[in-house]
Amino acid sequence: MESDWLRCGERLDDLLIGNLKIIQNEQEFCFSLDAVLLAHFATVRPGVTAVDLGAGTGVLGLLLLARGAGSVTGVEINPALADMAGRSAGFNGLAERLHFICADIRQINTYFCGGREELVIANPPYRPVGGGLISPNGRVAVARHEVIGDLAAFIAAARFLVKYRGRFAMVHLPERLAEILKGMSEAGLEPKRLQLVYPRPGRKPKLVLVEGVRGGKPGLDVLPPLFVCGSDGGYSQEIQAYYQQNPPQAGDRNVR
Amino acid sequence: MESDWLRCGERLDDLLIGNLKIIQNEQEFCFSLDAVLLAHFATVRPGVTAVDLGAGTGVLGLLLLARGAGSVTGVEINPALADMAGRSAGFNGLAERLHFICADIRQINTYFCGGREELVIANPPYRPVGGGLISPNGRVAVARHEVIGDLAAFIAAARFLVKYRGRFAMVHLPERLAEILKGMSEAGLEPKRLQLVYPRPGRKPKLVLVEGVRGGKPGLDVLPPLFVCGSDGGYSQEIQAYYQQNPPQAGDRNVR
Repeated sequence: MESDWLRCGERLDDLLIGNLKIIQNEQEFCFSLDAVLLAHFATVRPGVTAVDLGAGTGVLGLLLLARGAGSVTGVEINPALADMAGRSAGFNGLAERLHFICADIRQINTYFCGGREELVIANPPYRPVGGGLISPNGRVAVARHEVIGDLAAFIAAARFLVKYRGRFAMVHLPERLAEILKGMSEAGLEPKRLQLVYPRPGRKPKLVLVEGVRGGKPGLDVLPPLFVCGSDGGYSQEIQAYYQQNPPQAGDRNVR
Repeated sequence: MESDWLRCGERLDDLLIGNLKIIQNEQEFCFSLDAVLLAHFATVRPGVTAVDLGAGTGVLGLLLLARGAGSVTGVEINPALADMAGRSAGFNGLAERLHFICADIRQINTYFCGGREELVIANPPYRPVGGGLISPNGRVAVARHEVIGDLAAFIAAARFLVKYRGRFAMVHLPERLAEILKGMSEAGLEPKRLQLVYPRPGRKPKLVLVEGVRGGKPGLDVLPPLFVCGSDGGYSQEIQAYYQQNPPQAGDRNVR
């Protein structure tokens, strides 16, 4: 029964991928297309063990499992989200392969041994405090603005976790690209793959996807542009391909 | 008379922009579309004074003047190129506004006062020594590979020249983007504008255009993708617009 898994104010959304469902609550941060793009961009080797920093609703973990990951641990500072994400894993029968801990990524070394992870992934808060209106909902503010964990903190946590030759994949804003590449490179997570995401042809990019390799040599593979929509305004073929049998409609609330 | 300006082995090519002509020699490095893209990407304020580091044939100087710059000084280590570029300026009647000095950019402080330039521009050698076959023609090798001036040297020279709030614009390879953004940011030439150049839709980018501002705050404006060709294989509208009345043909040898 759905109602066994849902608490007051929560709803069950269809991820439209791998028959997965996800619990969300409009009072909390809800996932966006950004997570879907990141899950498809990251290099996911079959059976890989991954850590999701700032896991939110747990959407990235679900999508990584759908892409063949063996198990995922999500780290989320908001206890309500960490709990809800855990129930999403249970509802999908994935509780053994996807679990969540409620923790601050700045104290990651109290929860994990360092230098062991093959893949770390993050959809961190995008905006510095001072950049744009901060949500009056403190929990949403933490997910959108760098109130607690900033870009440097996410990179430092990834640097701590990732083993030699392991990967760190992130989605972020293009306006912060210089900081991102500089920070990753300085942390020894050499940027190796990058893709810019444009809302449609002729527009500026809204997102950047980047993947670094610990101990990698300098040399960045910049992929073709990823357009969310085509010239006709509908979703592009690349985005539709993520969804196979269930293409999203522009009105779907989990695809923004 | 053309022959008054040309030496043995040289030819006069039409820049197809602003009725400008340029002297080239197939034994030397010849300019490519990269310079045309950079000249159009750079922020050129009317009457600005600019320095072109690694000026080669002098094409960037000619194009900057066509875009409204007041005067340009090109710095070129190869004396044959510096001489040829000077004659191109003369042939176009621009000798008073475009001149060249034969110098090593690593000794830029013996030729210029520091911190005075409003715009510095560079189309540097792209490949590290060890990356790809080096031309057996030593002079071409210097223009293509970092035999003498590497990326760090070009950034350091620009850093020396540019005044507070002045700009440094460069064209380079996307695979070196992390180095470029990190190097410019660390030199205080904060990357503020960036555009990736794709040969055509669906392909990976071949070039990146980047502009930094000395003393600028972090925050990068990533522009829409620039496609050299459209889906039909002909030059895109953006490229055709550079040439106004004289659109280039795919076989033109100065548009590669």
